[in-house]
Amino acid sequence: MQYGSSGNTLNNFISNGSYSFCNPAFASLAGYSSLALLKMLGMSAYTIIQRFRTGSFITPEDDIYKKIINQLGLSHGNMVGTKSDLVERSRENHLNDLENIVPFVLAGLFYIGTRPKFDCALWHFRIFLLSRLLHTIAYQVPLPQPTRTISWLLGYSSIISMTIPVLRSIQL
Amino acid sequence: MQYGSSGNTLNNFISNGSYSFCNPAFASLAGYSSLALLKMLGMSAYTIIQRFRTGSFITPEDDIYKKIINQLGLSHGNMVGTKSDLVERSRENHLNDLENIVPFVLAGLFYIGTRPKFDCALWHFRIFLLSRLLHTIAYQVPLPQPTRTISWLLGYSSIISMTIPVLRSIQL
Amino acid sequence: MQYGSSGNTLNNFISNGSYSFCNPAFASLAGYSSLALLKMLGMSAYTIIQRFRTGSFITPEDDIYKKIINQLGLSHGNMVGTKSDLVERSRENHLNDLENIVPFVLAGLFYIGTRPKFDCALWHFRIFLLSRLLHTIAYQVPLPQPTRTISWLLGYSSIISMTIPVLRSIQL
Repeated sequence: MQYGSSGNTLNNFISNGSYSFCNPAFASLAGYSSLALLKMLGMSAYTIIQRFRTGSFITPEDDIYKKIINQLGLSHGNMVGTKSDLVERSRENHLNDLENIVPFVLAGLFYIGTRPKFDCALWHFRIFLLSRLLHTIAYQVPLPQPTRTISWLLGYSSIISMTIPVLRSIQL
Repeated sequence: MQYGSSGNTLNNFISNGSYSFCNPAFASLAGYSSLALLKMLGMSAYTIIQRFRTGSFITPEDDIYKKIINQLGLSHGNMVGTKSDLVERSRENHLNDLENIVPFVLAGLFYIGTRPKFDCALWHFRIFLLSRLLHTIAYQVPLPQPTRTISWLLGYSSIISMTIPVLRSIQL
Repeated sequence: MQYGSSGNTLNNFISNGSYSFCNPAFASLAGYSSLALLKMLGMSAYTIIQRFRTGSFITPEDDIYKKIINQLGLSHGNMVGTKSDLVERSRENHLNDLENIVPFVLAGLFYIGTRPKFDCALWHFRIFLLSRLLHTIAYQVPLPQPTRTISWLLGYSSIISMTIPVLRSIQL
């Protein structure tokens, strides 16, 4: 963990509170969240690839892309113009990411405020990121169930586990 | 509101800025946001319950769950394999949560930076959380309209109201 | 950029760390994020307008709105009761906003922690907001492709560009 360019790290840590890269738990959240967000953004690119592979677009103005596909000889014939299972699979995966990765980052931000032990926080983040990577592989290969369900459940549990210290440390 | 274990709360509050559990408005946002996020995560579980009740799954690899349903005698006969209204209702509700609860947490984080009065902030959070709970009940029972629309509108207004002080306190 | 009411701004900036409206980059993120979130929330209102224009609702309990449309003479006849392309277009746009604006705000929050140069941060936020406004116009008018794709790609690149300094400043 890099502690920035400041010489007086401890002093920085005290004056900055939890939300600073001088706090290793926050820096760790920033890194794992960024990787998870990049993975989620990657689903947009993957959906586009699947659209071009199957010639399946939504709006009429996208028809110019079908022409490009035909000119390049990329068309897979009978799939052009129909709703593609591959595109739907990628979109469902993207939606599942939104439903899990976004709550992870938000719950993580509040979790950092409870000043968790660094190791405990790190394992939450590691388990979450690995579970989401496994979920995506299980969804897109696809691997036999319940691989996808179990990988989703691991990440899901990690988020819920992070909200517990937040709810315990405050009174509504 | 608990003020942590530190004896010197005022000093902590000054040195930590707005984003610390020593700031009661931030602690309150953390609590209400966590509850709202848990409610949103609950929709995943609810969708799964509805999938098992109606035997309605998306992907071919989920067929092993249909076999389990049949073995346990949980199947409701003719609904197996068809797109279920109950599942769609749960998924639409989940998407509506994503469209509202995520902006609430994000707008709330910036709103805290404007150092709002604690009571004012607390009522924004309370109204939002209650409106989302009512929205879910109205969607899933379902209650006659316009119950669902009004409960959605209450939460929606709460988010917009929180963005106003943010936009007033900065120059673009 | 307003620096709050405090006289001793520099001192505040040091003691508060990056996450304070005294930090112009954070105040700027707060402003652009709030505008982007309001734009996203606006899609809910736009979808409702399109539902009333086309008489296309999802759930049975929404039928009371169809009656209101008929009484007010707003109905466009044959479109009532069918799935509307205009509503789908608005909903797809809203989902695309969720997939891009939410990661922008989250990545931006961590990006601020890397203490980026103010000008550099500001241009990321400006390009992102403009690209999302152009994307919405291109989607709803609709403008000929690849206007929509290019405007989406600009915002998408801006998010990815913000995650790079985060990933460089931390070790996993």
